[in-house]
Amino acid sequence: MGTSTRLRPPAVLLTIGDELLTGERVDTNAGWLAEALTDLSFDVREILSVGDEEEEIRNALVRAEIRAAGGVAILTGGLGPTLDDRTREAVARHRDVELQEDPAVLEVLAARFRDRGYADLPPLNRRIARVPRGARVLPNPEGSAPGLELPGSGSGSGSGSGSGAVLFLLPGVPAEMRAIFRGSVRERLDILFPERLAPPAVEIVRTSGIPESELAGELEACLEPLPGVKVQYRPSVEGVELRFSVEGTAAPARLAEALAAAKDALSPWRFGGRGTSAAEAALEACRQAGWRLAVAESCTGGMLGARLTAVPGSSDVVVGGVIAYDNRLKTDLLGVPGSLLEAHGAVSEPVACSMAAGACSRLGADIAVSITGVAGPGGGSETRPVGTVWFGLCRPGAPVRGRTERFPGTREEIRRRAVQFALRWVRMEALEAGAGTGPGDHVDSGSDSPR
Amino acid sequence: MGTSTRLRPPAVLLTIGDELLTGERVDTNAGWLAEALTDLSFDVREILSVGDEEEEIRNALVRAEIRAAGGVAILTGGLGPTLDDRTREAVARHRDVELQEDPAVLEVLAARFRDRGYADLPPLNRRIARVPRGARVLPNPEGSAPGLELPGSGSGSGSGSGSGAVLFLLPGVPAEMRAIFRGSVRERLDILFPERLAPPAVEIVRTSGIPESELAGELEACLEPLPGVKVQYRPSVEGVELRFSVEGTAAPARLAEALAAAKDALSPWRFGGRGTSAAEAALEACRQAGWRLAVAESCTGGMLGARLTAVPGSSDVVVGGVIAYDNRLKTDLLGVPGSLLEAHGAVSEPVACSMAAGACSRLGADIAVSITGVAGPGGGSETRPVGTVWFGLCRPGAPVRGRTERFPGTREEIRRRAVQFALRWVRMEALEAGAGTGPGDHVDSGSDSPR
Repeated sequence: MGTSTRLRPPAVLLTIGDELLTGERVDTNAGWLAEALTDLSFDVREILSVGDEEEEIRNALVRAEIRAAGGVAILTGGLGPTLDDRTREAVARHRDVELQEDPAVLEVLAARFRDRGYADLPPLNRRIARVPRGARVLPNPEGSAPGLELPGSGSGSGSGSGSGAVLFLLPGVPAEMRAIFRGSVRERLDILFPERLAPPAVEIVRTSGIPESELAGELEACLEPLPGVKVQYRPSVEGVELRFSVEGTAAPARLAEALAAAKDALSPWRFGGRGTSAAEAALEACRQAGWRLAVAESCTGGMLGARLTAVPGSSDVVVGGVIAYDNRLKTDLLGVPGSLLEAHGAVSEPVACSMAAGACSRLGADIAVSITGVAGPGGGSETRPVGTVWFGLCRPGAPVRGRTERFPGTREEIRRRAVQFALRWVRMEALEAGAGTGPGDHVDSGSDSPR
Repeated sequence: MGTSTRLRPPAVLLTIGDELLTGERVDTNAGWLAEALTDLSFDVREILSVGDEEEEIRNALVRAEIRAAGGVAILTGGLGPTLDDRTREAVARHRDVELQEDPAVLEVLAARFRDRGYADLPPLNRRIARVPRGARVLPNPEGSAPGLELPGSGSGSGSGSGSGAVLFLLPGVPAEMRAIFRGSVRERLDILFPERLAPPAVEIVRTSGIPESELAGELEACLEPLPGVKVQYRPSVEGVELRFSVEGTAAPARLAEALAAAKDALSPWRFGGRGTSAAEAALEACRQAGWRLAVAESCTGGMLGARLTAVPGSSDVVVGGVIAYDNRLKTDLLGVPGSLLEAHGAVSEPVACSMAAGACSRLGADIAVSITGVAGPGGGSETRPVGTVWFGLCRPGAPVRGRTERFPGTREEIRRRAVQFALRWVRMEALEAGAGTGPGDHVDSGSDSPR
């Protein structure tokens, strides 16, 4: 990376548990910690998963201390009360220190069990209070076993400059691990490794409706005059998430410049930042426009409605919808003429438009969107292959419009892509209505064409 | 484990990629391979993730060969065409063999690119055809980079008895990795390690509607006379998945005994085996009963419909549904009297029943189920706290029935639990109708009460 060990100290993650090696449990801790440590300017060099045996843990610790020398090794798992939890013992033996029962930890434990109706602490749980001599206890707000911190072996002072690594022992339960990391480890790392590189300035921009390659083309020109701005593309069925990052002292200012430069290019596709869903963005645009929304779904079978109503407070925008899976319901509930279905088939522009119009008027909405398509795996034809989806969009008093798309992927992926397309269309429509042009939302309607 | 190395050969997994160490990508390959190898009677001793640098990969390979001596090490990632993919180079250097361009691989690659409209193979992609001398090429049915197999270093014969490990190199793209594992690696392992312990006999039973602790209580009595039967409980929002496993020579017979003994206890809750969804089970029960199904959803907003229509071929059972999110639609589309809504509120037994009755008659179904509840986080009250959900079930000509449940969790979890409950109710109803009592499906209606 071209930076010194002090600026970006090495880190190793060691996740412990037989169930990780049999595939019974998926290790979510390693990925979470890797991201958290990277964001704190640590250089994560290795992730190692081993079983619960003491010998295995000790063997892995030898490697971890070498690979993370002068930095930090974080161990997760094996801190529970049962006899197969051996991480405490392995670490104590590895560092050649004794395990001592810590009265303060014991008292917290006993209180915890009293609260849950136990008169005495179950004997096995006393094991949790055994702490390697010299270790610092890190409180666990979510569970019984506290986190533990052991200074680097070469120094004994707790600073990161020793020949070994500072060790953190955290429980394997993800909620407990994260709570201790946020509540204690982060602060301890700041104290132990004060000279770290400033973490990169990072901004997440979520987009939909444009493939990664085109997005990269759009951004290249905007960002060329701004060296040092790194953009990562994370494509998924929901669209492409962009991670803008800049390192160095002027990072926040340079990041702001980059976002400003990219703003117009991203505008037709951007729907929000980290944690914003396309459904939230569509709802917010409708809310700004003062619109209520109805849906008419065939091949997605309710998925669009489900995505919208997953957002708390969606009821002020969403009226409801019709799942017109059977063609008879397209006629009975949405008023699609039988002749239209016969002449064009259910997967067609006229039927999509008629569904949207029916939903808009019958459900009393300000905007209605419809979806009808061939999600597969069966049902495709030469003219309407699997992945063909028609959409209709209706506003009272305006002509109904139809659009077609051809989506790749499995049945589920085609359905999810169709939902994402519908959400994007509704959002753009509401933003273009003008009333909804919120701060920072520039709409270039010319670019808003189906790809 | 008490078994010799030959019976349960050691295995190490080595996943490669900078993005694993920064948390940008979650490693799903390690868990998948760990389970697959465990099921094939390998003893997975360690999972190691390192970055893309050649030096890092070689360092990890030294460890992997020691830890998996006499067994197998599987590497994933770093086989792509770009220059930062260095796994081939690292392995060749580690084993001190040359990389040679393989004409057969090159021809497959060129054909693949011709099919995609390229006149010539892009130069970088020729890197994919470079194969370490002595390696066996394993075809990749899903992508460009083939898998590679290198014999154990101590023997050169390809048998697992050498001092090093047999190495398999697989692409990091999960679909490609899995396809090569299923298509080639599994067979190669059978040839290379013929004397392995018979894999345990395993059966997955999926249940819903009963918590893990009660299920364990039910099973304990049935399974007590059958030592050696191991049951793992994997709870999720969708219910509890049971993994029955038995090791040893008489494993299949003992497993069959266990499943027979547990059959009655599990019957009200079991909806299928590995890979079966509760939606599929409900659809199949309706299909057997000759019923067509309609849904009326309020708080789930289309999620029940989406789950049902996620199943290919669901259109022969699912008519469709109404997403009656706004109370006005409950009246307009489902015929729920306004007076009923006013007197009891939307989250009530009378309204749930009226929604189901309206869906059944207006949508022309043989069975209709309704959901209305408080999914939160807002909207709860003392009498109807967040998590309270009412269900209605209607069959033409029979009295409509209502049920209430109180679900824990987040908004999304409450909605998913509600959908799961509705699916279970529909399935039980269709099975009880008698016409649908399929082979092996015993229904104890007495136990079919809400918990």
